Amino acid sequence: MSAAKSNRGTAPHRAHESNAALATHFRQVRRTTEALAVPLSPEDCALQSMPDASPVKWHLAHVSWFFETFVLGEHVPGYAPFDPAFRILFNSYYNGVGDKHPRPQRGFISRPDFATVIAYRAHVDRAMHALFAEPLPPAAHALIELGLNHEQQHQELILTDVKHLFARNPGKPIYHGRWPLASVQPQPLAWHAFEAGLTTFGYADGGFAFDNELPAHRAFVAPFALASRPVTHGEFAEFIADGGYRRPELWLSLGWDTVVARQWQAPLYWERDGDAWRTFTLHGMVDIDAHTPVCHLSFFEADAYARWAGARLPTEFEWEFVARQQTIAGNFLDTGALHPLPLAGPQALAGPAQMYGDVWEWTRSEYAPYPGYRPAAGAVGEYNGKFMCGQYVLRGGSCATPMSHIRATYRNFFPPDARWQFSGVRLARDAG
Amino acid sequence: MSAAKSNRGTAPHRAHESNAALATHFRQVRRTTEALAVPLSPEDCALQSMPDASPVKWHLAHVSWFFETFVLGEHVPGYAPFDPAFRILFNSYYNGVGDKHPRPQRGFISRPDFATVIAYRAHVDRAMHALFAEPLPPAAHALIELGLNHEQQHQELILTDVKHLFARNPGKPIYHGRWPLASVQPQPLAWHAFEAGLTTFGYADGGFAFDNELPAHRAFVAPFALASRPVTHGEFAEFIADGGYRRPELWLSLGWDTVVARQWQAPLYWERDGDAWRTFTLHGMVDIDAHTPVCHLSFFEADAYARWAGARLPTEFEWEFVARQQTIAGNFLDTGALHPLPLAGPQALAGPAQMYGDVWEWTRSEYAPYPGYRPAAGAVGEYNGKFMCGQYVLRGGSCATPMSHIRATYRNFFPPDARWQFSGVRLARDAG
Amino acid sequence: MSAAKSNRGTAPHRAHESNAALATHFRQVRRTTEALAVPLSPEDCALQSMPDASPVKWHLAHVSWFFETFVLGEHVPGYAPFDPAFRILFNSYYNGVGDKHPRPQRGFISRPDFATVIAYRAHVDRAMHALFAEPLPPAAHALIELGLNHEQQHQELILTDVKHLFARNPGKPIYHGRWPLASVQPQPLAWHAFEAGLTTFGYADGGFAFDNELPAHRAFVAPFALASRPVTHGEFAEFIADGGYRRPELWLSLGWDTVVARQWQAPLYWERDGDAWRTFTLHGMVDIDAHTPVCHLSFFEADAYARWAGARLPTEFEWEFVARQQTIAGNFLDTGALHPLPLAGPQALAGPAQMYGDVWEWTRSEYAPYPGYRPAAGAVGEYNGKFMCGQYVLRGGSCATPMSHIRATYRNFFPPDARWQFSGVRLARDAG
Amino acid sequence: MSAAKSNRGTAPHRAHESNAALATHFRQVRRTTEALAVPLSPEDCALQSMPDASPVKWHLAHVSWFFETFVLGEHVPGYAPFDPAFRILFNSYYNGVGDKHPRPQRGFISRPDFATVIAYRAHVDRAMHALFAEPLPPAAHALIELGLNHEQQHQELILTDVKHLFARNPGKPIYHGRWPLASVQPQPLAWHAFEAGLTTFGYADGGFAFDNELPAHRAFVAPFALASRPVTHGEFAEFIADGGYRRPELWLSLGWDTVVARQWQAPLYWERDGDAWRTFTLHGMVDIDAHTPVCHLSFFEADAYARWAGARLPTEFEWEFVARQQTIAGNFLDTGALHPLPLAGPQALAGPAQMYGDVWEWTRSEYAPYPGYRPAAGAVGEYNGKFMCGQYVLRGGSCATPMSHIRATYRNFFPPDARWQFSGVRLARDAG
Repeated sequence: MSAAKSNRGTAPHRAHESNAALATHFRQVRRTTEALAVPLSPEDCALQSMPDASPVKWHLAHVSWFFETFVLGEHVPGYAPFDPAFRILFNSYYNGVGDKHPRPQRGFISRPDFATVIAYRAHVDRAMHALFAEPLPPAAHALIELGLNHEQQHQELILTDVKHLFARNPGKPIYHGRWPLASVQPQPLAWHAFEAGLTTFGYADGGFAFDNELPAHRAFVAPFALASRPVTHGEFAEFIADGGYRRPELWLSLGWDTVVARQWQAPLYWERDGDAWRTFTLHGMVDIDAHTPVCHLSFFEADAYARWAGARLPTEFEWEFVARQQTIAGNFLDTGALHPLPLAGPQALAGPAQMYGDVWEWTRSEYAPYPGYRPAAGAVGEYNGKFMCGQYVLRGGSCATPMSHIRATYRNFFPPDARWQFSGVRLARDAG
Repeated sequence: MSAAKSNRGTAPHRAHESNAALATHFRQVRRTTEALAVPLSPEDCALQSMPDASPVKWHLAHVSWFFETFVLGEHVPGYAPFDPAFRILFNSYYNGVGDKHPRPQRGFISRPDFATVIAYRAHVDRAMHALFAEPLPPAAHALIELGLNHEQQHQELILTDVKHLFARNPGKPIYHGRWPLASVQPQPLAWHAFEAGLTTFGYADGGFAFDNELPAHRAFVAPFALASRPVTHGEFAEFIADGGYRRPELWLSLGWDTVVARQWQAPLYWERDGDAWRTFTLHGMVDIDAHTPVCHLSFFEADAYARWAGARLPTEFEWEFVARQQTIAGNFLDTGALHPLPLAGPQALAGPAQMYGDVWEWTRSEYAPYPGYRPAAGAVGEYNGKFMCGQYVLRGGSCATPMSHIRATYRNFFPPDARWQFSGVRLARDAG
Repeated sequence: MSAAKSNRGTAPHRAHESNAALATHFRQVRRTTEALAVPLSPEDCALQSMPDASPVKWHLAHVSWFFETFVLGEHVPGYAPFDPAFRILFNSYYNGVGDKHPRPQRGFISRPDFATVIAYRAHVDRAMHALFAEPLPPAAHALIELGLNHEQQHQELILTDVKHLFARNPGKPIYHGRWPLASVQPQPLAWHAFEAGLTTFGYADGGFAFDNELPAHRAFVAPFALASRPVTHGEFAEFIADGGYRRPELWLSLGWDTVVARQWQAPLYWERDGDAWRTFTLHGMVDIDAHTPVCHLSFFEADAYARWAGARLPTEFEWEFVARQQTIAGNFLDTGALHPLPLAGPQALAGPAQMYGDVWEWTRSEYAPYPGYRPAAGAVGEYNGKFMCGQYVLRGGSCATPMSHIRATYRNFFPPDARWQFSGVRLARDAG
Repeated sequence: MSAAKSNRGTAPHRAHESNAALATHFRQVRRTTEALAVPLSPEDCALQSMPDASPVKWHLAHVSWFFETFVLGEHVPGYAPFDPAFRILFNSYYNGVGDKHPRPQRGFISRPDFATVIAYRAHVDRAMHALFAEPLPPAAHALIELGLNHEQQHQELILTDVKHLFARNPGKPIYHGRWPLASVQPQPLAWHAFEAGLTTFGYADGGFAFDNELPAHRAFVAPFALASRPVTHGEFAEFIADGGYRRPELWLSLGWDTVVARQWQAPLYWERDGDAWRTFTLHGMVDIDAHTPVCHLSFFEADAYARWAGARLPTEFEWEFVARQQTIAGNFLDTGALHPLPLAGPQALAGPAQMYGDVWEWTRSEYAPYPGYRPAAGAVGEYNGKFMCGQYVLRGGSCATPMSHIRATYRNFFPPDARWQFSGVRLARDAG
């Protein structure tokens, strides 16, 4: 329904890569996507577990459709599409491109089969590499960068959608057998205070950014404090033990309605096991590890937890204010852990830890346009802002996000009841 | 929701086949089932297009589960099940057997994969053939007969469910490429009159029958007339052209509610093509053939058509009264046509034609227990009667039914809004 | 939705009342209706508690609309309707009359107010009495008889709809303060056996009947036994105590789905009070009286109870076979009890008791057309048969039915999940 | 569902009225409420037209319940409640007070009747006036002020809920017969530009404010321009004529989903009349007046109109920035017009006109807590912030709002699909 992912659009690109660098980048991203499907069978890749999720096969095809439609179809004279029917079949939500196959029916498509979709990818790759051999018009260059960032978003969705599918299988299949966790010494939660200030937010560097990060603009932030790390599985289990899911006073009104209607009693994928909890991961069913960041929370659960803890969610500006002072590093897709990791060593004194990677952090900020926001022209930008209603911003990336995809200004967004992403929570509070 | 198919249960079996004959019968039925999957890929077999339909893979496994659970598990000491998890996973609706995987979630099961299900079938087949080498207790014999009839029912469902799945694919895949129709001279509709009588209905011969055909009992039938053949595609197109789907006075109240709510404008699978109609078949999209029996009608549409035509639906007793005077022959699964065929030659004078095969014929009779009906004991018979509410009886078999499966007393049943079976209509009227 | 009550239509009227007798009859029926509203305020009469129920004010107006539309409008030249807008506003479901106000929105009509509806009734009454002063054409005579029987049906609905409304008010208002029950000696349940026979069913006398009772026709009934009285509140409480609402094997499949979806744990209006049960009546909340016939059962609950008791529901033919040998007498609306009464004296030897009155008795028979059934012509008869799908027949009338309204051949009908009528159950079983 | 109105909570009260002044204020507010019910019958006051709206009788009782529960019950020793059952029956959503009658079932309460509710009001008024005769503790004083502001909110809801109810009546009743509009010379739309600035928002004066207006805090506003007046009925009709409701590119994604699902083709209450439009008002059905501010828009429609017009919605900070420079005056409830009025005279040069009154103006701002927001203690404040999710802020009051109720800092809020308030739109755009 919602889950209308993939905030896309073009930023002004001042510092383009060379053709050769772009071709290498292209090859890397495309290979990474295909590597994610290696543990999966064609049957695994064909199924759709809910309207918000898509079959892996559809993801594999749709990201290729993006290059075919917006790059090859526009910039290669006489380009012959692999199959003209794919223009509709693999369109996600671009009305400007024409009709589209209904999202909840992506799981009824046994044909084209998996092998055909792989052939489709190869067809597009060949045409793209032919394109790289020629001088690229700047518009094409920008669209290719956009397409690669788009494909990285779908890499994350492949993992979260497969996880959701496997969780619905009573056999609880394992996507990846190596369990990444080692026992660690827990880190107590601490607070870092920050002064008020009128500063600039949004993207202002020379590289790629989505248009929802633009324009850079000034905003005022009041004094605040931010927690030294995300809330952990163990802390969240205390919230549950304290009646967290049975006390309406801890919840937003819509959140409580959701708890009652869906009979939520714990985060997504948790199953009670006597007095303990188990959870489903890409490595199968496991006991929860108390020291890892909790994930698969909705905005509602993150908010209720914060209220219970005497704190609140940060705004996206507070988060960005802190994050842009840090180097981008952490437990991303690149580590192969595919699960949040505990904060191992003694915590750096300089500021909050685990801002990047591990879990997306819900903020209190509605996903809204920045002052002066302008959607891009044409079908690519047609819907840049159309999802700016009823969703909240998440920041920092997760263990399923490619590291190169993330920036301090990066804005992810989901409706407040969405739980199938690796979404967690970091506490904030007023200060000063 | 409903679509709770497979009216099963044991009749008194007076004339059992020998072990050898039963083994041959078993082999034939099992092979026929697998042959139906030959044109399909593992991906085709994994998908579920609506809650009423099941993935082909599920059908292939469930019919094997039936033998494993009710025959091997009961009558083979120390039988080791192929996979204990299958007891739940492939249970359809037998509460007496224990839990079951929810019907609408059969399409979330990418694992076990297709190859494993085929191995499961082989495992069961081997154990069954070992059983045939020994003297069989009568109870086992009866359950095997029941299991074979059960599997034949699922043969038909494999075809109707694949047809439904393929129809939802915008590529409109073809299951079988050979188009069976040749042009014929149309047969005008005639009427055959029958006298009133108090006669016996239900099964009374020595072979197999489902328990819903029992006991044989007397009922009175008033004078009536029955049409010489089913209503054709061409005749039904006239009903549409005459505003049939826009005139509430032609419909039952619940039928009209359904027409409005689902925006029905034609039978399932029909698509308008200018002034003409096309329809989806197991051979792909084709122009409707005016002279073939119309199919994919709901009870509501059959009833509305009959009212428009100044006639009515027959009762199941009227139908049986006529059918049992006829030899069982017609366009069944065995012909390979997989589509209703026109009435070719000059019509036999003896009585109505095409009573058997081509299309299931809706009757006006609610699916209700016969006087003296007794459900069988145990889990096999646990639910014999539990579907006797809110459904209507269809008679005669269709082009997707194995011929050996059908009798004059055979009662199929579906809710009045079901359309994905090969269901049609033959008119009746009062007489005398 | 359903609850499309009021099975109407015209039977051949051979023995009409005289004008004077008809006028007296008219006056009596109209006064009885208004008397039912005496304990109610205008606010009570304006509300609608569910789509199946209507505001009392709507009932008061609709039955007048019937006379205005089908009698005065047709047979009085120049008749001026009270308010032309009422033609739509108070039409129930006659498409032949034109548009109608949607059923679920009858509770949004604060205007016309109650006083205006009473004035509307007086307007119609005056015009009707003017009509009675002249010779009546036979068609008008028949329509007036139909209208009076129609109004009697709505008398019962006024009571059941008010009961439903009051039950949703946490203050649990009392419609009538006098509690009708006195303690009695319970009567053990006995069985009466009946022989098989081919006999005539349906209405064949000279008076009024609805067209669904026609034509009289022959049917064969196998040997059966019928219980000496309806199931009581006390017996039904035993069913509950024995886990009746938690055992799927006792229920039809659709019935069990309904139990689960609506979380049924007892009949409508029952509330647990420690180990005992209380129920809402038109006399307020009371302890259940163990010896009174249980009511507010759905077909599903009646059927499950019968299965639990090792019996079954009777067919409507079995019921009629017995009932037509009895005099029509019992606890009808006329007694003023407004609640089922216990079987007081020693039971008559001649046959089953309480066949008439107290509670409508669910039968196993789908509401279907009799052989040779013909709907009446015109808008009055437009929908005679349109409700003949998805409903089951109830027989015998209840404590809310006017006694003069009932016959041995009278067929009431409701969907299998309807519970807000005074509907109960009498057991049957096979015999011979 | 939502419509959870009445943003309440206590601000620090520095400048209380004297007891005598408060008593006079109390009397005035209570009388105004009752005056609104004068044109209505008890039946009008008993009905509920949708879950978001409440019966007038419920409003009349609930605002009294507020004083009884939070003032009399807390501050008058031995206070005897009028009816203890009302504690549950007329609780809106305060879990801290205990159970509550379900919102969608407020229309099933014919008893207590209207007269009893009026007696309830008198009972509470007497007790309150006894309280005013004694020295008031400051906490009581603050709660009474809160209760009066709360009652003013329900005055507006009485009007919008009656309007919704009457609109569902095919007779289209008239609440107030006097039509307030006179023909005027239209004012062309102009723009007023404003400079960027870091300034203070929220309430900082000495009087009453709701806690959602607190604390006063600094925020930065970029340069912007604001339209000289709200969008008019005539301008909105041009949007419709230009295909506004058929062009997905003009809508937010959720907005377009809503347009499709609810088949919106115009604002609430509009009906097409050939090429023109009519609309329902508290004065009955009328032709739209092209020069009056358009109302009964959802946030989605306001946003789509702005996009079509090449503009955008203002943020709530932009609106407040301009409004606090203006005197509070306009077409409020006090004028008795009960409908938006056209901008009559030549427009003041000083700034945008009609900022106050006529229509609530949708802003682009999600209803979120201000930095440093703290909910009040106890049940009164229990839910101050619980509605801060999924709603958008509206500013300025409407023709149904009491003038004394409004401030520049006042924040109203509704979900983006709500249309039954007098909600309109003023355009904004970036500048500088």
